[in-house]
Amino acid sequence: MLDHLGNWSRNHYCGVLREKNIGESVCLMGWVQKERDLGSLIFVDLRDFSGIVQLVFNNDTDSALYEKAQGLRSEFVIAVKGKPRERSNKNPNIPTGNIEVLVDELKILNTSEVPPIYVKDGDNVDETMRLKYRTLDLRKPEMQRNLRLRSKISQLTRNFFIDHNFVEIETPMLTKPTPEGARDYLVPSRINKGKFYALPQSPQLMKQLLMVGGFDRYIQITKCFRDEDLRANRQPEFTQIDMEMSFMSQEEIMDLNEEFIQMLYREIKGVELSSPFKKLPYNEAMDRFGSDKPDLRFAMEIQNISQLVKDSSFKVFSEATKDGKSVRCLLAKGLGKDLSRKKIDKLEDFVKTYGAKGLAWIKINEDGIQSPIAKFLDKELDAIIESLEAEVGDIILIVADEDSTVLAALGALRLHLAREFNLIDENHDEILWITDFPQFEYSQEENRYVAMHHPFTHPLEEDIPKLEENPSEVRAKAYDLVINGDEVGGGSIRINNSDLQEKMFKALGFSKEDAEEKFGFLLDAFKYGAPPHGGIAYGLDRLTMIFTGADNIRDVIAFPKTQSATCLMTGAPVEVSDKQLDELNIEVK
Amino acid sequence: MLDHLGNWSRNHYCGVLREKNIGESVCLMGWVQKERDLGSLIFVDLRDFSGIVQLVFNNDTDSALYEKAQGLRSEFVIAVKGKPRERSNKNPNIPTGNIEVLVDELKILNTSEVPPIYVKDGDNVDETMRLKYRTLDLRKPEMQRNLRLRSKISQLTRNFFIDHNFVEIETPMLTKPTPEGARDYLVPSRINKGKFYALPQSPQLMKQLLMVGGFDRYIQITKCFRDEDLRANRQPEFTQIDMEMSFMSQEEIMDLNEEFIQMLYREIKGVELSSPFKKLPYNEAMDRFGSDKPDLRFAMEIQNISQLVKDSSFKVFSEATKDGKSVRCLLAKGLGKDLSRKKIDKLEDFVKTYGAKGLAWIKINEDGIQSPIAKFLDKELDAIIESLEAEVGDIILIVADEDSTVLAALGALRLHLAREFNLIDENHDEILWITDFPQFEYSQEENRYVAMHHPFTHPLEEDIPKLEENPSEVRAKAYDLVINGDEVGGGSIRINNSDLQEKMFKALGFSKEDAEEKFGFLLDAFKYGAPPHGGIAYGLDRLTMIFTGADNIRDVIAFPKTQSATCLMTGAPVEVSDKQLDELNIEVK
Repeated sequence: MLDHLGNWSRNHYCGVLREKNIGESVCLMGWVQKERDLGSLIFVDLRDFSGIVQLVFNNDTDSALYEKAQGLRSEFVIAVKGKPRERSNKNPNIPTGNIEVLVDELKILNTSEVPPIYVKDGDNVDETMRLKYRTLDLRKPEMQRNLRLRSKISQLTRNFFIDHNFVEIETPMLTKPTPEGARDYLVPSRINKGKFYALPQSPQLMKQLLMVGGFDRYIQITKCFRDEDLRANRQPEFTQIDMEMSFMSQEEIMDLNEEFIQMLYREIKGVELSSPFKKLPYNEAMDRFGSDKPDLRFAMEIQNISQLVKDSSFKVFSEATKDGKSVRCLLAKGLGKDLSRKKIDKLEDFVKTYGAKGLAWIKINEDGIQSPIAKFLDKELDAIIESLEAEVGDIILIVADEDSTVLAALGALRLHLAREFNLIDENHDEILWITDFPQFEYSQEENRYVAMHHPFTHPLEEDIPKLEENPSEVRAKAYDLVINGDEVGGGSIRINNSDLQEKMFKALGFSKEDAEEKFGFLLDAFKYGAPPHGGIAYGLDRLTMIFTGADNIRDVIAFPKTQSATCLMTGAPVEVSDKQLDELNIEVK
Repeated sequence: MLDHLGNWSRNHYCGVLREKNIGESVCLMGWVQKERDLGSLIFVDLRDFSGIVQLVFNNDTDSALYEKAQGLRSEFVIAVKGKPRERSNKNPNIPTGNIEVLVDELKILNTSEVPPIYVKDGDNVDETMRLKYRTLDLRKPEMQRNLRLRSKISQLTRNFFIDHNFVEIETPMLTKPTPEGARDYLVPSRINKGKFYALPQSPQLMKQLLMVGGFDRYIQITKCFRDEDLRANRQPEFTQIDMEMSFMSQEEIMDLNEEFIQMLYREIKGVELSSPFKKLPYNEAMDRFGSDKPDLRFAMEIQNISQLVKDSSFKVFSEATKDGKSVRCLLAKGLGKDLSRKKIDKLEDFVKTYGAKGLAWIKINEDGIQSPIAKFLDKELDAIIESLEAEVGDIILIVADEDSTVLAALGALRLHLAREFNLIDENHDEILWITDFPQFEYSQEENRYVAMHHPFTHPLEEDIPKLEENPSEVRAKAYDLVINGDEVGGGSIRINNSDLQEKMFKALGFSKEDAEEKFGFLLDAFKYGAPPHGGIAYGLDRLTMIFTGADNIRDVIAFPKTQSATCLMTGAPVEVSDKQLDELNIEVK
């Protein structure tokens, strides 16, 4: 028979009790973390979200109470009244370790079967078990810390923007399906049979319409949905910090967002970031780091040695210095000894997954140069070494191919080596903006240009004339915020003019009818005085991972889904009744 | 050709300029509200979210600028630089009315076609047009005010709860379908073919699981979804302020929520509500007001006159005083003259829609009693009048029937009369709690008991033994917050024990297998130490209506749907391609 709370009222959290509380009458409630029966004394670690405190039951003082305490097991829910006293055997490992609470009264509010996973950090239990028994997993200090920090980030975010005259506006979850993006999650309509809503991939168009609607500054933290095959750190639903402003230049928007990020670092990490943040145009980022989200916590930049080898008799190199191709390398300082032949072979396999045909290398050993291509290179070898200022112990890793392949391969190899050889300084964060993105990228799959950001991004003014003839050269007023090699936010100035928007749709290969059918409501809204506007959207999950240090997105979400988009706790998704499908006028094939 | 923002930077909002700004250099941006060309002067009202200011263009000073200004039309988007000066013809109707801005420079940032609706309040345009041209509609001062106030309520709410140690946690949008509630919106899964997620009707179970997961105090403002036929003030998606606490009694939860509501009234209306709020048990609310969400801004309580007429020769009355039936009435003070026979007939039609068979009445005129049933009543007539303390000019309106019919009819009639005859004092709000709800209500349709709140509501301890034998007598630890006759929040203490939860499912007619399949994950979680917990959920849309005074839910939502659940702006829902349906493995019948 369980006890009821009755008129007991908790007056302290477990983890905050200190020596100053000695002698007070405390009423605590929480879970039994562990219990030890020493015969005349029972010690119980009582846990709530704030931490743990030791309880003592004394057989000499109250044997009935003692007997009741003997029934306690892990994860029982209890309430106790008692008095903190100094602990004889102090525990310096927990904040409450100088005291313990001598219990006068005990209520057993609930029992527990033997829990299938331990409620403690770092027990290395299989993630499947953690997700299945999520309510136990959530009691762990780490999960409590992560989700509380996430809440703090959300609250700091809203307060910052509201303090800057932003308005929080909720945009619809049941929206119009949008092509030209990821795959939509669809929701069949019962009232409008045969028709479907889509869950929003982002509130992009809605927030633009709010600008057209005169709201000037908008903020929302909201769920977005993309029905894509899930990679490691993706979830079918994710959370976006979404902001948009009217009448502001790209610089003004970026400045305000720098203030926002500075505020988060100040409040959460106690770190004062200097401003302005670094800015790298897209082309430079690709050239130097082979990535539009470079991790700047270590150097090892990509170097272009095409000029040095263009006349080489080594055809692989000289052929690769023609238009659109290049020979580039990484100088891996001091890694010569670490990279055995076998390991280099593995690196070659690695770059091949990025389309490279091979990986050439030059080691500068104490006893001279070692390189399988030395025999093909002559004075070029010295020129390369000199140009890179390579020293004894270094190794040069070279890829020759189409620019895009070379950069993708070396960009990935750079990160791979950094992780493998611990080249990353984890003690500070590197934050930068990537700017001047291409407006379009060519999709081999669709055989047309697609928008690199989205079709609503404003081109640079000076590039607008190239929209029809040279779309590949058009740059966008787009900017991504990158932290430690992760894209945490992306934004742009938006098109606010029907004519330009129609041109953009045309460049993307939409027919006039198609554009009208899909985005007519936007073009219509633009007819009645759309202000200049732009904004940015951050991934809250990503940001939280950075601030918590979590490397698994599921560790910053209360009830996440697996990579097959199922919830192991509830079993969702599930089959539904024919009656439900009938009402929706659909059937499963 | 439009102008670009260039390096212009807005330094003031329109509506905040005052005499103290005279002589400053201001840069303003906004929409042309109206323009008047006087030949040598052009006056333009410039509008942004903060209000309106008058601009002046002077032909004598700068004729090129003047010519440019001649092109301005309603809803053009412009930026101007200029200097505020004292206005000769002051306008006391707007806050900026003492000044005007003499413009030096003008940029036309965007043009506008002639807008199909005016951007001004109270133009009585058809709501269909307002929803179709929502971006114009949103520019209206009233819509700006409503949505900004909504944002403020959200922010005050989060700050209040976060300050009280609550954690904001996001619960999933793609969840397991839940029977035993309203109809779910379903989302077909592409990866798990033939299976479906549901959009949450509320985060009820998830927040309970967060309590089991040790979060202690949870807050979320989140979208909920119910696929029901829409009544006037319903939307397919609506927003809930959702809170839950562990280790707290019903009284402690209600106390904290009173503090919350007091804070909102203080911050938004500047009103200090006295605490504790009124509390009415459900049965008393029904008896006195015929409603579980009584509007207490006026009296006119229902009175039971069964005892006075039980021996009457008027069979309609005497028959109606037997078990489960009654004769009750409203005393409509001073309405005798207003209610002609014809009007009373209409009231009778009205109560018949609530199942009443008729409406008896007694008028106390200056020249005596007037009543079609006077001839059937004798001394009872005097007894009724005396008992009700009816006076000359009053009318008594009587219904005799099953209790539930009598109460429903008179409860509705009470509200109807109050609205028709302006009996409601709109200058103050009446707030109260309804408590001690029945745990179950009998569903004729389903031929079984259903949960009045939901199946997770904890019964009163003393009523638990009646669960099996007398479910209709079991009262719940449930509480609704009612403001001015609107239920704005509802909550309860929850069951936290598998055994009791299973009993509850059984009482609701679930088989063991059924309960396991549908709610097994909850029952499982309860096995490992579920703390006592409870909470409340408020309708943010309703709350915002109360604080803005809006009487249409669509006026407190940026992009609402119509009663047929369509969005007139985007056209959602729409038909989708066969490819999309194929991927989801479903087809439209």
